[in-house]
Amino acid sequence: MGKSVDIPAVDGVAIEAATARQNSLTKPQGSLGRLEDLAVQLAGIQATERPNVDRKWIIVAAGDHGVTAQGVSAFPAEVTPQMVANFLGGGAAINVLSRMVGAEVMIVDCGVAGEIPGPTDALVRRSQGRGTADFTAGPAMSLEQADAAIDAGVAIAGELAEKGAQLIAPGEMGIGNSTSAAAITAVMTGADVSTVAGRGTGIDDEGLERKIDAINRGIARNKPSSEDPRGVLSAVGGFEIGFIAGLMLGAASHRIAIVLDGYIATSAALIAAQIDPAVTGYMIGGHRSVEPGHTIALDHLGLRPLLELDMRLGEGSGAALAMSIIDAAVNLHNGMATFAEASVSNRDE
Amino acid sequence: MGKSVDIPAVDGVAIEAATARQNSLTKPQGSLGRLEDLAVQLAGIQATERPNVDRKWIIVAAGDHGVTAQGVSAFPAEVTPQMVANFLGGGAAINVLSRMVGAEVMIVDCGVAGEIPGPTDALVRRSQGRGTADFTAGPAMSLEQADAAIDAGVAIAGELAEKGAQLIAPGEMGIGNSTSAAAITAVMTGADVSTVAGRGTGIDDEGLERKIDAINRGIARNKPSSEDPRGVLSAVGGFEIGFIAGLMLGAASHRIAIVLDGYIATSAALIAAQIDPAVTGYMIGGHRSVEPGHTIALDHLGLRPLLELDMRLGEGSGAALAMSIIDAAVNLHNGMATFAEASVSNRDE
Repeated sequence: MGKSVDIPAVDGVAIEAATARQNSLTKPQGSLGRLEDLAVQLAGIQATERPNVDRKWIIVAAGDHGVTAQGVSAFPAEVTPQMVANFLGGGAAINVLSRMVGAEVMIVDCGVAGEIPGPTDALVRRSQGRGTADFTAGPAMSLEQADAAIDAGVAIAGELAEKGAQLIAPGEMGIGNSTSAAAITAVMTGADVSTVAGRGTGIDDEGLERKIDAINRGIARNKPSSEDPRGVLSAVGGFEIGFIAGLMLGAASHRIAIVLDGYIATSAALIAAQIDPAVTGYMIGGHRSVEPGHTIALDHLGLRPLLELDMRLGEGSGAALAMSIIDAAVNLHNGMATFAEASVSNRDE
Repeated sequence: MGKSVDIPAVDGVAIEAATARQNSLTKPQGSLGRLEDLAVQLAGIQATERPNVDRKWIIVAAGDHGVTAQGVSAFPAEVTPQMVANFLGGGAAINVLSRMVGAEVMIVDCGVAGEIPGPTDALVRRSQGRGTADFTAGPAMSLEQADAAIDAGVAIAGELAEKGAQLIAPGEMGIGNSTSAAAITAVMTGADVSTVAGRGTGIDDEGLERKIDAINRGIARNKPSSEDPRGVLSAVGGFEIGFIAGLMLGAASHRIAIVLDGYIATSAALIAAQIDPAVTGYMIGGHRSVEPGHTIALDHLGLRPLLELDMRLGEGSGAALAMSIIDAAVNLHNGMATFAEASVSNRDE
């Protein structure tokens, strides 16, 4: 990437203070389970005993993929611009969920191929090209495009930080992008392609064979190395995936917590974590997708998602749902009475 | 129980209509996973293509347990009335969560032993006695008390139905009640006591031994039969557990959906389902507790909870969190655009 980001360590003093507060609240110690861990993690991220996640953003990054020419998706590529229009019109799943959790939605064109129908005033344009190239025939994008995609994400994170963002969920839309995510996951984790490629939006057995074959050919052709995350992005990535990787790095540099969505967002996290491992301290696993490669990617990052609801939609939908659990963790942390305040006997008394 | 309840079958026509609607929304079919199933289940429960869960109630039923004399809990019994006062004062976990999910909270004294400190104007008094008897020495309650506890729950469900309740989460508070829940689960499922007894609010190894021993002695002494749910409640149950069983039966009779909380609420569901198996069609699994017996009870009911966050608090806290997922499922079902409305190409086109 062109510019470098500086990610601070999470705050140990705040973590200790938040842990002590958790143990003083009117409940048996540990009885809120992962909600206690979440509150303490956010305290470390925000460097305060009492974290706050009122200001949330969901950023949906859209991009097209040349590899769709290989017949790897159940939907035609024209659906990418159509769904971007649906996001802008407020009719998609992520619009409904963002209203529920009180998050702002930002839709970013990172590299959509077709014309986006309807009014696009609210669209944030950071396009690096009209879709990536077919990675079975050469790199998906140039190294310069890879850098530009990451830098665009870092810059947007800076803008969100200025607006006061405390928690972000990067989502995506792009027909063919689970093929790119599987290729990235195979390279970054060393897993066999057949174990990380899934049915995406719903391809049949033959389509899955074509998808695995296309990924294997793309890796053989471009020879990406897991040590070179920019090279991996250039070889088999997507414009929206590079943008999300940059968004994550930028968010962490501003002490903004990041909720991971599904397989594609997590493949971007693999790229980001290879650029700077400190970013993982700012990540919260959101939802475990039914895509088999997602669990492999999450394990590689050491993350266990909060939810497992058999979803496989993307858009940031799993992360948006997880935001309501994170909200609960923070509200309990800040809003519950202590044993002393409520005159309740603790077990030690 | 004194009065009988009549539980209607879920509505097949509404289920078909809701399924058709799900398949018309702008997402790959099935990509919202369990959220799609939830919307369809609620359509069947409410007998409408477009269910609504805006009017939610969390009912926290409190009661004390004579078996605490056997040293089965990490907390003293005086904590039950203290925590009831905390619920009434708004400082407990369930108060924070109910505000978040937009649910009304009702606190019911089903049989608390000690005096409840502070103002109790908002307390609903349906006490069947000042705590149950120690079930290692005889039945926890009389059959008349068991009937009265269930009837009180049925009656409150009727009052909630009149207020327009669409979704309820029965929660509980009662030092010692995970011992009662384990005894009920052992009897109703046939599982060995050692597999269904857990650490509750946090007892040590010796306490767990005492707990298992007390349950075994209680079952040997009272000889409850799984065919006789009232007898099981009388033998090893709790006043709040009987109340919750009645609440569930009453809710189902009024087509109100029920979210299951943790182990104690689920043990009440076992009693309710033995009284009328039709009640299970109205149940939604909320959160899987770390108590090992909870999974055994859920499996017996054929339910898979929505959440698994390592919680073990009770109060309705797991069910309250699950309400936000249920809200999302219904909002997506009703609020998303269809392929036709948004001019998005479906895979069949």
